[in-house]
Amino acid sequence: MADPVRIEADYLIETAYDPRRAAEAMAGEQSSGTFVPVPGETPELKARSAARIEALELFDEVVPVPSLPGAGRPGGEDVVYRRARCTLSWPIENMGPSLPNLVATVAGNLFELRQFSGLRLLDLRLPTAFADAYPGPSFGVEGTRRLANVHGRPLIGTIVKPSVGLGPEETAALVQTLCEAGIDFIKDDELQADGPHCPFDRRAEAVMRVVNAHADRTGKKAMVAFNLTGDLDQMRRRHDLVLALGGTCVMASLNAVGLVGMVELGRHTQLPIHAHRNGWGALNRHPLLGWSYVAWQKIWRLAGVDHMHVNGLANKFCEDDDSVIASARACLTPMFEAKPCTVMPVFSSGQSARQADGTFRALGSTDLIFAAGGGIMAHPDGPAAGVASLREAWEAAMAGIDPATHARAHPALARALETYGG
Amino acid sequence: MADPVRIEADYLIETAYDPRRAAEAMAGEQSSGTFVPVPGETPELKARSAARIEALELFDEVVPVPSLPGAGRPGGEDVVYRRARCTLSWPIENMGPSLPNLVATVAGNLFELRQFSGLRLLDLRLPTAFADAYPGPSFGVEGTRRLANVHGRPLIGTIVKPSVGLGPEETAALVQTLCEAGIDFIKDDELQADGPHCPFDRRAEAVMRVVNAHADRTGKKAMVAFNLTGDLDQMRRRHDLVLALGGTCVMASLNAVGLVGMVELGRHTQLPIHAHRNGWGALNRHPLLGWSYVAWQKIWRLAGVDHMHVNGLANKFCEDDDSVIASARACLTPMFEAKPCTVMPVFSSGQSARQADGTFRALGSTDLIFAAGGGIMAHPDGPAAGVASLREAWEAAMAGIDPATHARAHPALARALETYGG
Repeated sequence: MADPVRIEADYLIETAYDPRRAAEAMAGEQSSGTFVPVPGETPELKARSAARIEALELFDEVVPVPSLPGAGRPGGEDVVYRRARCTLSWPIENMGPSLPNLVATVAGNLFELRQFSGLRLLDLRLPTAFADAYPGPSFGVEGTRRLANVHGRPLIGTIVKPSVGLGPEETAALVQTLCEAGIDFIKDDELQADGPHCPFDRRAEAVMRVVNAHADRTGKKAMVAFNLTGDLDQMRRRHDLVLALGGTCVMASLNAVGLVGMVELGRHTQLPIHAHRNGWGALNRHPLLGWSYVAWQKIWRLAGVDHMHVNGLANKFCEDDDSVIASARACLTPMFEAKPCTVMPVFSSGQSARQADGTFRALGSTDLIFAAGGGIMAHPDGPAAGVASLREAWEAAMAGIDPATHARAHPALARALETYGG
Repeated sequence: MADPVRIEADYLIETAYDPRRAAEAMAGEQSSGTFVPVPGETPELKARSAARIEALELFDEVVPVPSLPGAGRPGGEDVVYRRARCTLSWPIENMGPSLPNLVATVAGNLFELRQFSGLRLLDLRLPTAFADAYPGPSFGVEGTRRLANVHGRPLIGTIVKPSVGLGPEETAALVQTLCEAGIDFIKDDELQADGPHCPFDRRAEAVMRVVNAHADRTGKKAMVAFNLTGDLDQMRRRHDLVLALGGTCVMASLNAVGLVGMVELGRHTQLPIHAHRNGWGALNRHPLLGWSYVAWQKIWRLAGVDHMHVNGLANKFCEDDDSVIASARACLTPMFEAKPCTVMPVFSSGQSARQADGTFRALGSTDLIFAAGGGIMAHPDGPAAGVASLREAWEAAMAGIDPATHARAHPALARALETYGG
């Protein structure tokens, strides 16, 4: 991997026009050009500032109807839409090593261009100046493992449910049960914030009392990701409270907080940041629009998050397994030669012991958080058996043992496979 | 208009399932429920915290194929997809009056739910606690008019082009030309930030030298929206510089900065904030996904912006005119009884004298910024004639005079109508 000199972005495009002409329009719109020639756009200025088409790979597939409405088309009757993978590059001098201005450039007005009936940002490669300008993850995989004291296997995690409605003491009682079940990691739901019925401070105090007492007794301290999503002063204050209480993680909703807020939190934090991607579907669900996760997660890693949600295999949402695994691989792939910025992928959504084997085989790594709600709480023999079943499923996966075989000597796993399906 | 007690959100949904059941799943997922029953979700907790379906209006139209991939469907062969408008409500106690947590609730995981082959947030209504918690626009329509000293007609504006590549002195020379042309408003392109070839500080100093000198000479000070998009400390510092130089506006890219950063800028600012919506297409271009502008602009108005981009009639992008006008109307519609938070809509993208009449007739207001690039700079008689043609076109529109009739006594308008089409 050699870090690029220019900013590079790959796009999937769909157009009724000549794809090269359409790509040229996109390059112009996102740098020195506009829809009409303007007086000051001299050859020297273009050489200095224009975006370049670095690659254009036309796909054979021809699409009879446009994927998105509103696109233009040439005259004539036999209009078809063609797709291509296109790489543009920009000199970093256009905007400097600034994440917000990078986003305005590589993911700005171009989604609305009439030339395109489909346009999606697939990947990004950045000059090292960005690695110098931004903190990147403060903890990442190793720092998270150290704080959770979990090595050589995934962190087994869960989500407080009901998502919202429990008070501080009720939440703490549930956390107590989960600690006694041997859990490694617990997170707030993204809907749980700082409402009057369950204020952040009282919840954090009640939960950390339980977590600390359990750690004093057993030596094992569960990592709890407290959702501190809020305005900037609120997030900083909540972070400081969690730190003071002996907590080891905070959580924020990326799309709700936004980039500048996350950069500030990344610069302030002394704890791993668990990044929730709720709202992501709006940017990603249409396959010819928005952002791929591979491009998107790079922005947040540079901003300083440590854990990134990637959904899970056979999840309750719309995403297929290949996409989930590609997302998790992206999180574990270094971004820069000297600053890898790797983060822990978080598997969740309808997870149980039955997905461990497939997840390990597809990813080839245990550097992940494997979060199950019903997969732990709804285990017929209780939460401790739920946690045990997940650990056993991962032991089997890592040893290359068929889950059903492993289950013969491991009753918690056996009951989980019965309950959740093999 | 009575402010609601609960948070209300309207959605357009498309589903192969019974629409009421699908809406119930959405309400559950975004409040106290999840995909399986969990032990703590008592009737009391649900009464306190569950989202409610307030309305469900089924449309007659039946869609044979799903609008988005990945959705589930019931068994059987004759599956069709139905659409509905659905209103959910939440108690504000779930999250408190917090904009980031509101976004995570009304626009969180729901876009990925398997029940839906289409889901779009159409509108939002908020309790007054939000108006108490957030600044709203510091200047809005009246404050902008006061600073620009333009009353009873739109502000005539333009964008510095080429978007990127000019140095500080070249930018200032262009601004000089525009000031001499009688322009009311000038904005940086969103691609112009703080690169080494055109550093923000040097650009602001050079431009304000020209703007101030012109104001001293003529009494007219053009409002220049300097793009301060960047990390938080950079944005604050740049704002302070513009203020110190006598500038009257700053600009930021909403999707690049994000909500927490914009709230901080809104709390810091002593100047109107010109909000650029680049990247908006990713959230909006598919009609069955993401956000409507009507919902989206409310978030930013509360956060404190003063001008919101709405595209323009017959624009160079994909949006149709009805959508543009609905967006502009939304910006001018009060949000709360005691705190209207109205902002100035900014029309731009391929605008010239030819769109003034249609814009005024559709909107019925002159409270707007009308920004033209080529519509001013490419006027055959020069930029001064370009600005004059726009003012004359608006005079005609406001007086109910046909543009062609008005053009007989107004040569700048006549040439503009010839050049850009009637």
